[in-house]
Amino acid sequence: MLILKGGTVLTYLNNGKFYCEKTDVLIKDTKIKKIGKNLQKEFKDAIIENVEDKYIIPGFVQSHIHLCQVLFKGSADDMELMDWLEKRIWPLEAMHTAESISISAKMGIAELMSGGTTTVVDMGTIRHTEYIAEELVNSGIRAFFGKTMMDRKGLPDFLKEDTQKSIEDSLDLYNKYHGKGDGRIKYAFAPRFAVSCTDELLKQVSDICKDKGLLFHTHASENKKEIELVKELTGMKNIEYFEKKEIAGENLLLAHCVWVDDEEREILKKYNIKVIHCPSANMKLASGIAPIPKYLKDKITVGLGADGAPCNNNLSMFKEMKLAALIQKPFHGPTCMNAGEAFKMATLGGAKVVGMENEIGSIEEGKKADIVILDLEKINSSPYFDPVSSIVYSAAFSNVDKVFIDGKVVYNNGKHLTINTEHLVKDANVILRDFMVKL
Amino acid sequence: MLILKGGTVLTYLNNGKFYCEKTDVLIKDTKIKKIGKNLQKEFKDAIIENVEDKYIIPGFVQSHIHLCQVLFKGSADDMELMDWLEKRIWPLEAMHTAESISISAKMGIAELMSGGTTTVVDMGTIRHTEYIAEELVNSGIRAFFGKTMMDRKGLPDFLKEDTQKSIEDSLDLYNKYHGKGDGRIKYAFAPRFAVSCTDELLKQVSDICKDKGLLFHTHASENKKEIELVKELTGMKNIEYFEKKEIAGENLLLAHCVWVDDEEREILKKYNIKVIHCPSANMKLASGIAPIPKYLKDKITVGLGADGAPCNNNLSMFKEMKLAALIQKPFHGPTCMNAGEAFKMATLGGAKVVGMENEIGSIEEGKKADIVILDLEKINSSPYFDPVSSIVYSAAFSNVDKVFIDGKVVYNNGKHLTINTEHLVKDANVILRDFMVKL
Repeated sequence: MLILKGGTVLTYLNNGKFYCEKTDVLIKDTKIKKIGKNLQKEFKDAIIENVEDKYIIPGFVQSHIHLCQVLFKGSADDMELMDWLEKRIWPLEAMHTAESISISAKMGIAELMSGGTTTVVDMGTIRHTEYIAEELVNSGIRAFFGKTMMDRKGLPDFLKEDTQKSIEDSLDLYNKYHGKGDGRIKYAFAPRFAVSCTDELLKQVSDICKDKGLLFHTHASENKKEIELVKELTGMKNIEYFEKKEIAGENLLLAHCVWVDDEEREILKKYNIKVIHCPSANMKLASGIAPIPKYLKDKITVGLGADGAPCNNNLSMFKEMKLAALIQKPFHGPTCMNAGEAFKMATLGGAKVVGMENEIGSIEEGKKADIVILDLEKINSSPYFDPVSSIVYSAAFSNVDKVFIDGKVVYNNGKHLTINTEHLVKDANVILRDFMVKL
Repeated sequence: MLILKGGTVLTYLNNGKFYCEKTDVLIKDTKIKKIGKNLQKEFKDAIIENVEDKYIIPGFVQSHIHLCQVLFKGSADDMELMDWLEKRIWPLEAMHTAESISISAKMGIAELMSGGTTTVVDMGTIRHTEYIAEELVNSGIRAFFGKTMMDRKGLPDFLKEDTQKSIEDSLDLYNKYHGKGDGRIKYAFAPRFAVSCTDELLKQVSDICKDKGLLFHTHASENKKEIELVKELTGMKNIEYFEKKEIAGENLLLAHCVWVDDEEREILKKYNIKVIHCPSANMKLASGIAPIPKYLKDKITVGLGADGAPCNNNLSMFKEMKLAALIQKPFHGPTCMNAGEAFKMATLGGAKVVGMENEIGSIEEGKKADIVILDLEKINSSPYFDPVSSIVYSAAFSNVDKVFIDGKVVYNNGKHLTINTEHLVKDANVILRDFMVKL
């Protein structure tokens, strides 16, 4: 048992209220056992950790990322989307080896943890997703993951899969990894997007997910060309297509939703479909600005994600929160998307996206101890009057002191405790440069 | 003499070309004396500093900031502009004491230096600007500064100045500080904006500036309400007004220029007026998105600035470069404003804004030794294929190893060498909270 003593708990609660109090937190095994003052009187055996003047916040939930792309971080900038995909991302993904993908995943998880992210939803890759899974298990992070699925005609040969084989491979990964890491790791099917998947694949995947209670994680309505293509291929609007095919449901996670009309927004609302907002990626790939204020007004669940490293180029929830709050303002005014709303999306919003709002996303008794200790008493993040403002608008990785996942410390004072980072950066740079020369 | 050995010089040159070479740099006194391989053979007495695997880049030039507002960093978020000014910024600025303004300036300069900024253009404040000047002199930063001037009717009493008194106070500061710090510190007149200044003040200031060869630093066309107000007050468009009053000139620095029509853009071009782009502030205050690609196409000089801490909330050139590159893309496509253009604005662009392109803004022989040593071999900024991408899209303060200004080290490995930061954060937090209670 561990008592975090002297800090300020800052969190949105499941009941929607904001809570910010100087109080102790007792961690027992994997959970937050108790929150209150002077807990050492009641729990005399507990170790006491002094977190005086620090903030105790819930770990961030990044509900859409691509760990396989971390290796390609600085190698696909300022390009047209189809060039970005066809000249860089797809061929680079196809070059991945067991070693390169492990390094990519490890780098990504290390960056995520050092920025206070404790849960991720990962899109995997066509092949080698098992190496990502291994890193997720070993690192101690909480994760939903799935292999990318792409079976529609017209894709490059090195990427296109056979429908049944893609589903079988996914089920193999599900059987091997779902529930691993004391339940931290869960499988989430990951068809890439409507444009790259057949009706048959999407429908079968949806049925399997509903049957097994799994998440269905995909991209949707990210850019205008994509929605036109969906219309051409299916005769329907993208979200409408998900409804007509009976894929719509509360387990459906749609990354982006930038180009969604009012009618489609009604579908999101009706089926409790989850939206994942990726502001950096939407800017960098010139996709557009997602109508997040409308989604929130409609009580559609929205989480945040950094997406892939090449369209970002960091896996930082601090940067996503800040950008989420900033990009709406020139169009909807300065009071739109305040710091608190951005923080809520990054924590409880993400927890709701993955259906774990009763287990993670806030600091509450009985929830899992996915906790970040923040030190805001630094030049970059001080002075502040409202700590939420400091977290969303000013803080950076350098403010993260310690990260707990499932009650275990995974990152402390600049050091990773579950990932060997010694040669990681060097190895990643060598492999990326080798790939780029071969491209 | 000091030889920086084993690093890679990365810079845009005055001739417009990009230069990225593994080569040594010799610093002698305040200047870059020589660039070339194996300099220790020729300069046997020089001390050798190993910067193996690191990048040697020019210090950033933040051409529009408000050091007096650093203290109000986290205290004016998500508010309407007039509320922001009237309920927070103006009354808070009016509360400033000698102590609080010194702390504000010191915090700001410390943050700027630790993020690789070596030159600033500061707007000062109505009263107490001398305390900012003292901190600028003592810190070792390169700076243009001026006291804010506001003399138009209708302003709150605690802010409104008498025209002649405002000019006299400015001239006193000019006489006392211009050329101080071995020439690092220069005076730049700083009328707040057309809306808060009389024709008489603006015209007199312009004449003094032209006579003495000083910069004229002001805000212009930041938001729609402001340009409407200028029209109401003067019967002219904002930039047109500067032309008609014969204020337009190459020494005129206009922060923002978000709402500038084609005709006014012609005026900017014709008079070689300088534009300072503040992307974070333009987003946070919901001002809009400045037409920077058009300015660059017209070869108008554009620099970057973080503006005031409360509309930002960091003084980070990394964040401004990234945002400058990102925010144009959803409207003008992904190839618009690439990483190189953002880096160029942050360095040589800023140098041109302040008329010092022959002295700072690039790593070239004979220029002043305003140099930043960057370590990109870290998890947040690696892997990368193109170092400019890593600097603009991925890097953060944690990548800044060392900062030289005028050949002197001001920041090294997390430590400030010219600013006593020991109690700074604590003091700033105490004062801000006291101010907020009194507000």
